Amino acid sequence: MITPLKGGDQLDEQGLERLIEYVIAGGVHGIFLLGTTGEATNLSYQLRQDFIEKACAIIRKRIPVMVGITDTSISGSLEMATVSKNAGADALVISTPYYLPMAQHEFVNYLEYLVPQLPLPFLLYNMPSCTKMHMSVKTVKKAKEIGAIGIKDSSGDLGYLYALIEEFKDSPDFSIICGTEIFIPESVIFGGRGGIAGGANIFPGLFVNYYEAALANDLYKISRLREIVIQIEKKIYNIGTSAAKHIKSIKCALSVLEICNDFVAQPFQQFGLNEKEQMKQNINELIATYPEIQAEFDILKITD
Amino acid sequence: MITPLKGGDQLDEQGLERLIEYVIAGGVHGIFLLGTTGEATNLSYQLRQDFIEKACAIIRKRIPVMVGITDTSISGSLEMATVSKNAGADALVISTPYYLPMAQHEFVNYLEYLVPQLPLPFLLYNMPSCTKMHMSVKTVKKAKEIGAIGIKDSSGDLGYLYALIEEFKDSPDFSIICGTEIFIPESVIFGGRGGIAGGANIFPGLFVNYYEAALANDLYKISRLREIVIQIEKKIYNIGTSAAKHIKSIKCALSVLEICNDFVAQPFQQFGLNEKEQMKQNINELIATYPEIQAEFDILKITD
Amino acid sequence: MITPLKGGDQLDEQGLERLIEYVIAGGVHGIFLLGTTGEATNLSYQLRQDFIEKACAIIRKRIPVMVGITDTSISGSLEMATVSKNAGADALVISTPYYLPMAQHEFVNYLEYLVPQLPLPFLLYNMPSCTKMHMSVKTVKKAKEIGAIGIKDSSGDLGYLYALIEEFKDSPDFSIICGTEIFIPESVIFGGRGGIAGGANIFPGLFVNYYEAALANDLYKISRLREIVIQIEKKIYNIGTSAAKHIKSIKCALSVLEICNDFVAQPFQQFGLNEKEQMKQNINELIATYPEIQAEFDILKITD
Amino acid sequence: MITPLKGGDQLDEQGLERLIEYVIAGGVHGIFLLGTTGEATNLSYQLRQDFIEKACAIIRKRIPVMVGITDTSISGSLEMATVSKNAGADALVISTPYYLPMAQHEFVNYLEYLVPQLPLPFLLYNMPSCTKMHMSVKTVKKAKEIGAIGIKDSSGDLGYLYALIEEFKDSPDFSIICGTEIFIPESVIFGGRGGIAGGANIFPGLFVNYYEAALANDLYKISRLREIVIQIEKKIYNIGTSAAKHIKSIKCALSVLEICNDFVAQPFQQFGLNEKEQMKQNINELIATYPEIQAEFDILKITD
Repeated sequence: MITPLKGGDQLDEQGLERLIEYVIAGGVHGIFLLGTTGEATNLSYQLRQDFIEKACAIIRKRIPVMVGITDTSISGSLEMATVSKNAGADALVISTPYYLPMAQHEFVNYLEYLVPQLPLPFLLYNMPSCTKMHMSVKTVKKAKEIGAIGIKDSSGDLGYLYALIEEFKDSPDFSIICGTEIFIPESVIFGGRGGIAGGANIFPGLFVNYYEAALANDLYKISRLREIVIQIEKKIYNIGTSAAKHIKSIKCALSVLEICNDFVAQPFQQFGLNEKEQMKQNINELIATYPEIQAEFDILKITD
Repeated sequence: MITPLKGGDQLDEQGLERLIEYVIAGGVHGIFLLGTTGEATNLSYQLRQDFIEKACAIIRKRIPVMVGITDTSISGSLEMATVSKNAGADALVISTPYYLPMAQHEFVNYLEYLVPQLPLPFLLYNMPSCTKMHMSVKTVKKAKEIGAIGIKDSSGDLGYLYALIEEFKDSPDFSIICGTEIFIPESVIFGGRGGIAGGANIFPGLFVNYYEAALANDLYKISRLREIVIQIEKKIYNIGTSAAKHIKSIKCALSVLEICNDFVAQPFQQFGLNEKEQMKQNINELIATYPEIQAEFDILKITD
Repeated sequence: MITPLKGGDQLDEQGLERLIEYVIAGGVHGIFLLGTTGEATNLSYQLRQDFIEKACAIIRKRIPVMVGITDTSISGSLEMATVSKNAGADALVISTPYYLPMAQHEFVNYLEYLVPQLPLPFLLYNMPSCTKMHMSVKTVKKAKEIGAIGIKDSSGDLGYLYALIEEFKDSPDFSIICGTEIFIPESVIFGGRGGIAGGANIFPGLFVNYYEAALANDLYKISRLREIVIQIEKKIYNIGTSAAKHIKSIKCALSVLEICNDFVAQPFQQFGLNEKEQMKQNINELIATYPEIQAEFDILKITD
Repeated sequence: MITPLKGGDQLDEQGLERLIEYVIAGGVHGIFLLGTTGEATNLSYQLRQDFIEKACAIIRKRIPVMVGITDTSISGSLEMATVSKNAGADALVISTPYYLPMAQHEFVNYLEYLVPQLPLPFLLYNMPSCTKMHMSVKTVKKAKEIGAIGIKDSSGDLGYLYALIEEFKDSPDFSIICGTEIFIPESVIFGGRGGIAGGANIFPGLFVNYYEAALANDLYKISRLREIVIQIEKKIYNIGTSAAKHIKSIKCALSVLEICNDFVAQPFQQFGLNEKEQMKQNINELIATYPEIQAEFDILKITD
């Protein structure tokens, strides 16, 4: 989930409430706070704490909550872990500290030091494009021994995800979760547990259907829904050239849909008027082409 | 300068005092706190504040102090800027926020927002291997217009540094500083202002001589001293394979010299016994080969 | 298909005949000569010509033959195109000339110049790890206009392959072929035409079954066969660290199976005795674990 | 030296003669045929042979000739080596075969096999951006044992070049030659043998002066000439975005100067009219700013 903001280090609280109710109404099975799309690294600890507490209070245990605590500073990670526990979150998500690149064994050593101090179970988060380290299968095995209960893989490398599934086929409790929207069906069909998709901020029901089509091995429906997912990639996420365009575009789309503000935390900036106008047109095009999209927006009586 | 630590988020205060006196005795012309070698990103704000205050108090304005305030969170950067001002530092050093890679124009926008809130002059810090963004010459020009008074370039690309010198040849007040030890003489000879060298933690006098040889266009002396710098690279920094090996090795060498503790902040770990033993041998070898090294250590009566 | 050699620029003719009969007996639907696995770039034109002619003569039009003509020199490409036509091949395969990296539009210009001179239809071959250029979807569209009848994608990026399928969904005659063994089922299920697999040199029947399971949407069988494909990757291809290890290992395995010689053309060298011994053990392990492997080898009465 | 062409696989013989006389009149100390700038990989063997023979005949042993024989096919390399010997060339230049990336030890094995068959002495050519392999210092040491008499380094990494100089300081016969124009003075001052510069096709005298200023340790003159070299980089080489823009721009400039044709071999294409017009203007600007440039062109009575 994105972190709705209305200004520098200011939470958009009404937007947050609307967004949470929207995605729960859409049927999502859990919420991941403060990941890459959640702009975690760009927010002050104070705002992160505030956000975790408010979000957990709104969610009220209706669905599980995971909180990303990755930080270059271990004291920051531990602080956010405690906040998450106290707010009632269910699990933590940990990626690689990311300024200097880490070696595989250094990350394992780090986990050995960090994990015993964590008050909640944790999943790994493999995000090499941002962290500069691609967790090897061997590293994931060691992390499982140290206590990891699963992994969200956002490497975009489905072959790696299949290698994880093959490696952990006798550990059904270890959850392998796909962080690449396009590959969620494959990962579910062939042994993964599900997907975490930034697009579910805007189209929660669509992504739930996509996941359920995979659970049901419904290849025709997958094919149809993937066509929409590919078009979302082209029409929604692909505005501008920023490395943060996924964040900017999801926030912009949610603002077009009047769910929450489109403010983006420094060092990035939200879309300008031209890009917002483009977003409106592209959303209208998607609605015109795919009735599933309109059905989605009807959840919250969103009309064009 | 490294940040001497004696444990998780604990400053090694005696070590800090010894280290500062050692490098000042060695003749350095300024001190850069909380850069990459200073492990800034891995320390809590509380420790960073404590360190800035204590270091400035020990230095007592004898030489200028620059403080790195780069952070993925702008509120963290601003907090450290205020602390630096209050502690009596002279300038700030700013690199690119570093989780998601930034585009050139996004970094310029970020500076336009950040700089008016800074209480001190600032230099840029180009560190693409860690930040994922190589500041273009055009970006540096814009940053200068926004207020930058110089740049420390740690890209390792001397051609780029020459291009900066050529670009700013009519702006003698804009300081171009080399962050790659091996190229300090070239940069000084052909128009740069000086160098910032991690190795000056261990060999401050040697690097001062190296700089002064360049100022004097003494090519023979440069050649001789560069041979030592290359050997330092091979014998001191090149132990182990970690991306943090410069930090680990400088701290280990300072601990062998009994200047300060070798503790390294998480997510990294200090060298083990084998590597420390190797360091001792390599330092002895350097002393045996180069009398300049022994002269260096005599500053603080360091003997083998 | 690999190019069986018995020495520097010497074809292993008996091995070639055995190999062709073996893969045809295994049921493959076509043969691709002189691709990356075929060591095309490392062979003299004379040897390439000899090989094309002999292979086509042995195949006798039983199944279609495609020939890779990629070369840094366009005259070399044209020469091999003529040889292929005269030998009775069915299509040509063209990748990007690969010394200096090409821009997308430069490759399109190159095709516009080259294609009118070709005596046979052609497919594209996307192989960015070797050629330094990843053909964009737009480039593939232009190449189709210039005459391409399909593309073999060996980028390893299934998302790209899906984007191609989406782009060309109204052009059923444009064949999208997967060059990454692990993703052949996905590509066939969701609209691709098939796969070209180096592993089919050793296990032709297994890869035919894998393809047919995808055609039949038999997810259970795919899952079972993919497990074997992943183990082949681990146990056969993954010996040594060379970038040419796929070539070395396939040739070594074929030599263990007494199908052909394991000689590898300069600048690479075949496996040594230790690696060959390891290969034997690994093949035995695979046979012991998967009865499908033994069934495969029974085709040619290969026994352990 | 570039390879003057007047069409697909057709040598521009008059242009070749004018170019050779021009660079010899400019004072160059040797000529390197068929390197990257010489488009070697994109020419047929027949044209390469023709070119080697004609160029050597024109040069008539007035200065030494080196010929690049790098090829993905070892038989091609050996053929060109024989041609070079027979034509009267003085040395061969060998880089890494470049389709699949090679490991360091594979390249050493390759040299062990190739070198005994060479009829002339050879230098290494380190060109990692095209060949995908950066020759390690250890590899260069082994190559020297196998018979290499020097290395041209075009990695752009001056630190690496200094490391080579340090490694071979006791082997004055092993020539370390800088292939990066901007760093020729540094490499000569601190122990290198000279430079090989594509720009010397256009400005042979300028580069000779640049080299001689370094020999004389004339830092002021180096500084002045480097300013021109940087401007040449910006104004001449930097037109367009192609990876082959150095080749295109040097040929275009030589055509503007009426020395030879600007035809570029496939898969690349020469500059269009707009870029050629831009080149004329930029050359005029350089002449207007730097009298050294005009002096250069007066060698052959080239006037604007």
